[in-house]
Amino acid sequence: MNFKIGGVTERMPIPVIKAFGILKRAAAEVNQDYGLDPKIANAIMRAADEVAEGKLNDHFPLVVWQTGSGTQTNMNVNEVISNRAIEILGGELGSKKPVHPNDHVNKSQSSNDTFPTAMHIAAAVEVHEVLLPGLQKLQDALEAKSKEFAQIIKIGRTHTQDAVPLTLGQEFSGYVQQVKYAMTRIKAAMPRIYELAAGGTAVGTGLNTRIGFAEKVAAKVATLTGLPFVTAPNKFEALAAHDALVELSGAMNTSACSLMKIANDIRFLGSGPRSGLGELILPENEPGSSIMPGKVNPTQCEAMTMVAAQVMGNHVAVTVGGSNGHFELNVFKPMMIKNVLHSARLLGDASVSFTENCVVGIQANTERINKLMNESLMLVTALNPHIGYDKAAKIAKTAHKNGSTLKATAIELGYLTAEQFDEWVKPKDMLGPK
Amino acid sequence: MNFKIGGVTERMPIPVIKAFGILKRAAAEVNQDYGLDPKIANAIMRAADEVAEGKLNDHFPLVVWQTGSGTQTNMNVNEVISNRAIEILGGELGSKKPVHPNDHVNKSQSSNDTFPTAMHIAAAVEVHEVLLPGLQKLQDALEAKSKEFAQIIKIGRTHTQDAVPLTLGQEFSGYVQQVKYAMTRIKAAMPRIYELAAGGTAVGTGLNTRIGFAEKVAAKVATLTGLPFVTAPNKFEALAAHDALVELSGAMNTSACSLMKIANDIRFLGSGPRSGLGELILPENEPGSSIMPGKVNPTQCEAMTMVAAQVMGNHVAVTVGGSNGHFELNVFKPMMIKNVLHSARLLGDASVSFTENCVVGIQANTERINKLMNESLMLVTALNPHIGYDKAAKIAKTAHKNGSTLKATAIELGYLTAEQFDEWVKPKDMLGPK
Amino acid sequence: MNFKIGGVTERMPIPVIKAFGILKRAAAEVNQDYGLDPKIANAIMRAADEVAEGKLNDHFPLVVWQTGSGTQTNMNVNEVISNRAIEILGGELGSKKPVHPNDHVNKSQSSNDTFPTAMHIAAAVEVHEVLLPGLQKLQDALEAKSKEFAQIIKIGRTHTQDAVPLTLGQEFSGYVQQVKYAMTRIKAAMPRIYELAAGGTAVGTGLNTRIGFAEKVAAKVATLTGLPFVTAPNKFEALAAHDALVELSGAMNTSACSLMKIANDIRFLGSGPRSGLGELILPENEPGSSIMPGKVNPTQCEAMTMVAAQVMGNHVAVTVGGSNGHFELNVFKPMMIKNVLHSARLLGDASVSFTENCVVGIQANTERINKLMNESLMLVTALNPHIGYDKAAKIAKTAHKNGSTLKATAIELGYLTAEQFDEWVKPKDMLGPK
Amino acid sequence: MNFKIGGVTERMPIPVIKAFGILKRAAAEVNQDYGLDPKIANAIMRAADEVAEGKLNDHFPLVVWQTGSGTQTNMNVNEVISNRAIEILGGELGSKKPVHPNDHVNKSQSSNDTFPTAMHIAAAVEVHEVLLPGLQKLQDALEAKSKEFAQIIKIGRTHTQDAVPLTLGQEFSGYVQQVKYAMTRIKAAMPRIYELAAGGTAVGTGLNTRIGFAEKVAAKVATLTGLPFVTAPNKFEALAAHDALVELSGAMNTSACSLMKIANDIRFLGSGPRSGLGELILPENEPGSSIMPGKVNPTQCEAMTMVAAQVMGNHVAVTVGGSNGHFELNVFKPMMIKNVLHSARLLGDASVSFTENCVVGIQANTERINKLMNESLMLVTALNPHIGYDKAAKIAKTAHKNGSTLKATAIELGYLTAEQFDEWVKPKDMLGPK
Repeated sequence: MNFKIGGVTERMPIPVIKAFGILKRAAAEVNQDYGLDPKIANAIMRAADEVAEGKLNDHFPLVVWQTGSGTQTNMNVNEVISNRAIEILGGELGSKKPVHPNDHVNKSQSSNDTFPTAMHIAAAVEVHEVLLPGLQKLQDALEAKSKEFAQIIKIGRTHTQDAVPLTLGQEFSGYVQQVKYAMTRIKAAMPRIYELAAGGTAVGTGLNTRIGFAEKVAAKVATLTGLPFVTAPNKFEALAAHDALVELSGAMNTSACSLMKIANDIRFLGSGPRSGLGELILPENEPGSSIMPGKVNPTQCEAMTMVAAQVMGNHVAVTVGGSNGHFELNVFKPMMIKNVLHSARLLGDASVSFTENCVVGIQANTERINKLMNESLMLVTALNPHIGYDKAAKIAKTAHKNGSTLKATAIELGYLTAEQFDEWVKPKDMLGPK
Repeated sequence: MNFKIGGVTERMPIPVIKAFGILKRAAAEVNQDYGLDPKIANAIMRAADEVAEGKLNDHFPLVVWQTGSGTQTNMNVNEVISNRAIEILGGELGSKKPVHPNDHVNKSQSSNDTFPTAMHIAAAVEVHEVLLPGLQKLQDALEAKSKEFAQIIKIGRTHTQDAVPLTLGQEFSGYVQQVKYAMTRIKAAMPRIYELAAGGTAVGTGLNTRIGFAEKVAAKVATLTGLPFVTAPNKFEALAAHDALVELSGAMNTSACSLMKIANDIRFLGSGPRSGLGELILPENEPGSSIMPGKVNPTQCEAMTMVAAQVMGNHVAVTVGGSNGHFELNVFKPMMIKNVLHSARLLGDASVSFTENCVVGIQANTERINKLMNESLMLVTALNPHIGYDKAAKIAKTAHKNGSTLKATAIELGYLTAEQFDEWVKPKDMLGPK
Repeated sequence: MNFKIGGVTERMPIPVIKAFGILKRAAAEVNQDYGLDPKIANAIMRAADEVAEGKLNDHFPLVVWQTGSGTQTNMNVNEVISNRAIEILGGELGSKKPVHPNDHVNKSQSSNDTFPTAMHIAAAVEVHEVLLPGLQKLQDALEAKSKEFAQIIKIGRTHTQDAVPLTLGQEFSGYVQQVKYAMTRIKAAMPRIYELAAGGTAVGTGLNTRIGFAEKVAAKVATLTGLPFVTAPNKFEALAAHDALVELSGAMNTSACSLMKIANDIRFLGSGPRSGLGELILPENEPGSSIMPGKVNPTQCEAMTMVAAQVMGNHVAVTVGGSNGHFELNVFKPMMIKNVLHSARLLGDASVSFTENCVVGIQANTERINKLMNESLMLVTALNPHIGYDKAAKIAKTAHKNGSTLKATAIELGYLTAEQFDEWVKPKDMLGPK
Repeated sequence: MNFKIGGVTERMPIPVIKAFGILKRAAAEVNQDYGLDPKIANAIMRAADEVAEGKLNDHFPLVVWQTGSGTQTNMNVNEVISNRAIEILGGELGSKKPVHPNDHVNKSQSSNDTFPTAMHIAAAVEVHEVLLPGLQKLQDALEAKSKEFAQIIKIGRTHTQDAVPLTLGQEFSGYVQQVKYAMTRIKAAMPRIYELAAGGTAVGTGLNTRIGFAEKVAAKVATLTGLPFVTAPNKFEALAAHDALVELSGAMNTSACSLMKIANDIRFLGSGPRSGLGELILPENEPGSSIMPGKVNPTQCEAMTMVAAQVMGNHVAVTVGGSNGHFELNVFKPMMIKNVLHSARLLGDASVSFTENCVVGIQANTERINKLMNESLMLVTALNPHIGYDKAAKIAKTAHKNGSTLKATAIELGYLTAEQFDEWVKPKDMLGPK
């Protein structure tokens, strides 16, 4: 091997290998329609199924830092399948007979169209099996918390400074919306991912394939995966550019921003136990410190924010690769799909971990929340319509300076009576328009 | 001013100022429905229209590096409009009477919901007025070239190496697809941009507004702009996160990858005049060099690729800002919208410049294209089905070694006759599946 | 003009224009040594000085989105200087006589070596005049605060959770170190910036120059600027790559991380007034909110963190441009220098603004700091050496559960006496090793 | 485990584990000086040595997506070492006797200072063992080629267009300079990497350590590794920020730009075999295509450029993590070191692979180089001093239009004689100043 770069962690991701299994199976089936010996076709299909099921994972030792078209991996797949098919048919391993890696397994295909096809299949499957379920789980958990916390009125914070009140449920509803839209965004990117390059062969013209091959392969892959794959309307674009992966990565980058915001909020709202904001009580999952007993750290928030940073970085790698295709081929394929799959898996897994080990166990520290709310100077806003902005500001500033309450200060300044204060300053009346 | 950062080029972008004009006009109209004195409302509307039309641009000297909520700009707008409205009504400038900047112009509003509303209006308008028309123009020009070049068969290039043929029209069709999808992607991001924060006031609850205010303002803005704005379904998300802008920036980032690929291809295909690929003849727009006479440089490609790099950078700035919101407010607003507008304008303008000064004038150098095609070794692929992969490879390698043609070599090696070669190796038969 | 891209904010940055003035003056002086008519040379020098002083700024309307070598700007400079020199000599504007833009002003030069020379001069000058002074000012202010706060013991926070104590002065000393190292990093990048491409002409060979020209020009520029410029040891690298700018941008990117951390800490430590951490009191510079009276926002922190995000984005643009040079020339020059200068100016200006309007006015809220410190559970760490980790943890957890103090809980659990507690748990003994 | 995120490829990098072995060994040695029972200290030292040698790698299954301080990994290390030490001493595994993971192995330490110490050790070792040797090897190979190609005169290319000549050796000398400076830049970042946090314990104060512990541990680590580690002058910075890693990552990012430029040039200069530039002949390492026989692809260039894109992405992840520390601790530690080590390993390995499988085997295609050179229109530049810029341009344009040579055209236009042409236009006189 001419590519000793990076070691075992850098191997071609398993989802790509499995996707190749699906593709090779579909291609064999279609090739049979076009005349490939059914015995050979069937053996290829059985072998390809095993690849798709992950049974032959150990036979794919190649790293991603290889030819930028993934040619070595396509050849690796062709050889593993041909050998396994030969074995199934009782032939001699390595003889290329009766199942030839190029002439049969790779029939009507090229690395240049199979690899991008496998990229799209792998990305779509990972999105559907890992990323979207993870985000859905998180959305559900946040939504449940939003409802649970619907009646808890708390101080708002803007500019990290005290602001007018909202409910803890409303605050969480913003998170729900972010995660919901994360899924919307990812789904919006999928139509281009569902387009398969198969049938374009070496440069996109479809040389050495048959009319209809491309459409039939896409249909077979759709059937095998249950996902709405179609043949790419323009194979030149499908080989020479991977804008669809940059787009999907961009959707995940946006999701990473959403998740970083949520995780950051939760760790700050849960900060303490005594010198932080302390409005949320986070689950204790592990001892927090080897030196400070009694400490509980927001470790799930930390894992999530680290994942978010990684996804943002991966996105730049995908962007740089995506912008550097030349002529009929982009040769950053293995790097691009590695990063896309990495981001999808990390976001999906981290969402599940964050949900199970943090979100579902979050409790509101209502005592603390009430205390902060009642001490707040920002309730003064409720007085604006009654006494005007300037007097309201005066009350707030005076109370702040004297360390006293709004009510006492307001009365002392002679701007209103205690009764008026109680009537006008009702946090629960400050939660929406009138 | 407490923010002497960066000088005049750093001023709040004019599209934001104009968007504020639209918003303030809409708000005044709705406030009138809710009881604001029609005389005051009308004066505000007239003044706001002038802001929207750019007539008062000089009154907005503030830079983007200010409060992260854009508060100073909202106040600036309120003051300019109130003063202009006072002027219209014959009052005394600076008196705040009869039109008060806070009590009237900013009525039912807060910086925290007006600024993000102006961000979305500005982004949507720039997308529709500059970005999409620019991309459409480019797509049209590329499509025309794709048709014009439909019959020109040329050598393909994969891995920057010679490959099997395609038509120049097919090659350009890939670019058409990329630009077409660039628009698809940008449009796919717009539904979230059309959601307006107005009505959320300080923390998203809508405190101090009236029921229906949010919906009515969005409807007015939609009428004024002709774009399908709606009120944001969740105002907490609309103030605390700007995922929608990260998403739009991500779509532009993908577009930048597409445009960099296209511009790179065109400059390499047009490289020469004698020591490059030389397949395209690019328009001569300006003298190329102060030292090398006769040189024509692909300057439009260079401008375009520089723009693409800038958009990728802007996207990271937007991403970092978008990920760092806290609690009820994201305070990277002015920086985020500056970068989004910058990217939209640059991509739109550069697309027009690239189209007008480069794409429409591109000519195919058919003499050169034919020469390269006929000398190519890659046509050997056409022999695969007839004599097998191994013999075909032998012919190509021998011809390469001897500097001879495929045909002569094939005959010399005794693999086929001249007639067979001419029958089997027909570039125009290699442009698609059979 | 063929580049209608982006409008007036996109003009070639003034520091580049001024740098060109310095370079053209130096070249004229050296050309005189090599035989250029002293009358012409002197007129060029006078005109170039005016460009260097910014007196002719209005004559440079070109945007950065032009030829990637900056050719148009070099030509622009040559023409402005030749015309001004002609004017000085009493000739006819536009006649190119007696001072020819190419033959005299650009003598022994090419756009390909003058533009990168101007890039390096501009970057070095901006670093020395804006960036380093700004950071130094900030370091000095932080250092003064670190000393002022040296005796204030406060609760530490790790994982945003309460931790063992340190002094506020120690906390600020970390910021001092970050800013100090920011300068160290920027200075470490300068040796490559001090290398000038002048003398390389079109491809780096120095064709059409004279032996010694390169060295003499660099020496003149060094004299004119007071900075240690030298001629680049390898002109091929100096034209074809701009790694030196990527490196400098990288140093600024690291500085941006430092400044974002500091500004984030300060806004969180200053959060409140009542529902935040409240340990710092930040200066009130402007009214904080149009709806919430009495609110003071950490606006300088917000401007600084927005700047930091911008610098991170600019860095990616510079990186993408820097990686995409081809053969003898990198053609992302105007974009790269625009971003480098933008980052330098923003970081320098923001550091001054942040220092003057925030840092120097920061006060410690000692009452609040003491309260949090005394209530803290993390002082329990001091008991580890005396009663062991497990018992210490038990005390902390019990006190946390019961909302009681460590001391009361420790005694109640029978682990130690009140006297022992007072002797063992002394915050001021917890500030360093023993 | 509460962090099921990402699978086996996401495990804490082995260099971090080994670095922990070095640190724990050093700490045990120093702790013995301060009174730790020599029997226990020695057992810890032996066990730690085994960790440092990679003998216990299987015992570290934790992924990086855990607590952001790396606490779980520090605990993992403490437990593995204590158990192995117990085993060495003949005790019962899991009994924590006689070697306690916290009280003995972690003595005078905290996760918060040990993890960043291990980060710096791991980064420094990887830089010295993998990255710098890889780059040195590449520099040496490029330098040898630069000398080998010193006499080969070729056409230069600027704007991807033909330009004046240079030697192939000069062109390669630019690459040599880039790689040389890559090493300079990386070395310039190391002084901050050599600073160790050990001795800072939980928040940087050094609570629960002894005076001198920090300095002694750093000295021991220096001895064990042969690298000039010192104790960090400010432990608050060393725990709360990881600017030093952002800086190192930035130096690698610049190196990635350099390597992408070089690899891009080489693949384009080697493009062909017949329809490309064809000036370089790259080694044939593997069959290039499954469909196009005879094709040789620049696969090492592709691996290198993919690596470069990855490093640029990793750098953004490191930047985002580095900017988001809070108060006394940055909690993006595992993610940051993972990316830094990833970049260092990939760049180092790819440099070796690129050198061995590509650079050393590059041959100049002198026939092709000469042909392009002699046909070039850009040699006309040599006529500028003799007949002026305008006539020279006329010759070039006319020759270009007519497809004729410069010489024939020049004579035909009557600007000079054949003898003059031969005397004035000598490529070998165009390679430097006069």
